Amino acid sequence: MMVAEHAGPCFGVRNAIRIAFDCAGERTYISGELVHNPHVTRELEHAGVVKIDDLKALSPGDRLIIRAHGEPESVYEYCREHGVKIIDAACPFVKKAQSLAEQMEKDGYQVVLVGDKNHPEVKSILARTKSGVAILSCDEINDALLCKGRFGILSQTTQKKENFLSVSAALLAHAREAKIYNTICSATMQRQEAAVRLAKQVDAMIVVGGKNSANTRQLYDLCNEIVTTYWVNDLSELDKLWLQGKTRIGLTAGASTPDRIIQQFREHLEQI
Amino acid sequence: MMVAEHAGPCFGVRNAIRIAFDCAGERTYISGELVHNPHVTRELEHAGVVKIDDLKALSPGDRLIIRAHGEPESVYEYCREHGVKIIDAACPFVKKAQSLAEQMEKDGYQVVLVGDKNHPEVKSILARTKSGVAILSCDEINDALLCKGRFGILSQTTQKKENFLSVSAALLAHAREAKIYNTICSATMQRQEAAVRLAKQVDAMIVVGGKNSANTRQLYDLCNEIVTTYWVNDLSELDKLWLQGKTRIGLTAGASTPDRIIQQFREHLEQI
Repeated sequence: MMVAEHAGPCFGVRNAIRIAFDCAGERTYISGELVHNPHVTRELEHAGVVKIDDLKALSPGDRLIIRAHGEPESVYEYCREHGVKIIDAACPFVKKAQSLAEQMEKDGYQVVLVGDKNHPEVKSILARTKSGVAILSCDEINDALLCKGRFGILSQTTQKKENFLSVSAALLAHAREAKIYNTICSATMQRQEAAVRLAKQVDAMIVVGGKNSANTRQLYDLCNEIVTTYWVNDLSELDKLWLQGKTRIGLTAGASTPDRIIQQFREHLEQI
Repeated sequence: MMVAEHAGPCFGVRNAIRIAFDCAGERTYISGELVHNPHVTRELEHAGVVKIDDLKALSPGDRLIIRAHGEPESVYEYCREHGVKIIDAACPFVKKAQSLAEQMEKDGYQVVLVGDKNHPEVKSILARTKSGVAILSCDEINDALLCKGRFGILSQTTQKKENFLSVSAALLAHAREAKIYNTICSATMQRQEAAVRLAKQVDAMIVVGGKNSANTRQLYDLCNEIVTTYWVNDLSELDKLWLQGKTRIGLTAGASTPDRIIQQFREHLEQI
């Protein structure tokens, strides 16, 4: 059994989890999940952090945790206006992408974010712009977009590098000018590269992480192109039959997977 | 016989020729060729414009024509310091690329110009920077270049678009940030696209232009990939045997080819 060199929690996730648990307690709320992992979500609930669907549920003096994926500026404004204290656990790399998007729009660029338009991180970045758009692949580049001549291109922090590059190159073919920031975080790139290296050396890969975690999906896709790969959230989902007759098993985990869960897999697989 | 929709002199060349002949006369000099065409060069000589190899040959009161490809800032400075009058026939698109390169270097980008480092236009643009480099293909991207994380990329105005895009994409793969200007002039793009369209409809192509003209070489390369193509400077170089048995002949010409020469070809080919 081999564990990928860079697996599991990144700086942004560790940071968010630390901040959230430090402040958990009375009148502490969060809108959505802190990180895309059901174990972390459940533990936070136990610690007294209440999930809300609508900011109107908040009262003056309440504390709102800003999750790792960030929130639109409007959430910060609402809190300021209504006396709600902000506990900012947004990933600094996401915040950097937010301000780059805002600045590029001010500078007259059509902002294009390579990523999934339904992901909270993508929403939080594009909310800093008036006309920014998210596209996930070259197929989504349409005539309406192409009539703009100046593109400001950046990436969801957990995007696959190859995809970011191919979309950028496709837009570039239609641009007079492009300003391009590779905002894929270094942890994502290292994790992906390490997973690919490991997948080439084993008979099967196990990818551990939440099923709604974008960066875990990228790991699964990358490994599955190379070797038989299983995506599980925790040990209970692991099927013994999968590993029968396989001598070398590789393990990696998404950014939002707690160390504790990874450690459980490590111990279990070493005993097989 | 069919002539490409966009063939021959562009705005920059017509402009340079007009300026040069308007001012030709006593004590008028040029360093190098106004445009890369031997006919134009010879006519300018007849009009009294003297070619010099060294600025030191100039005296106060002399006039120096700045050629279409532009000159480094040092030439302008030398003239100012020595009382030489500048007649600026540099192409406005080249001057635009010069100032973009200068500004990008000031903004901290490693300037990369996609083009031929020996071409006077490329030299005139890079002379505005301290550390700017010219590379013509992805093969020339080396480790020393890749250690820079922020690239400011632009193009020789007569570069092939596909090449500009592939070099830009290759650099982007190694960049945290890139600012990219497509400085290929619209006349070049239109001329290339029209030549390719025409080449697909004929049995042979004739490309007319100086043998040291970069944009003429691009036309030749593009057409020659599609159909048998001949590159000639003027009618005297045309071999009747080339066209035997061919019913549809296509004609295009580089940016520096005078209308008069193109007209000679047109009349000649229509008689065949």
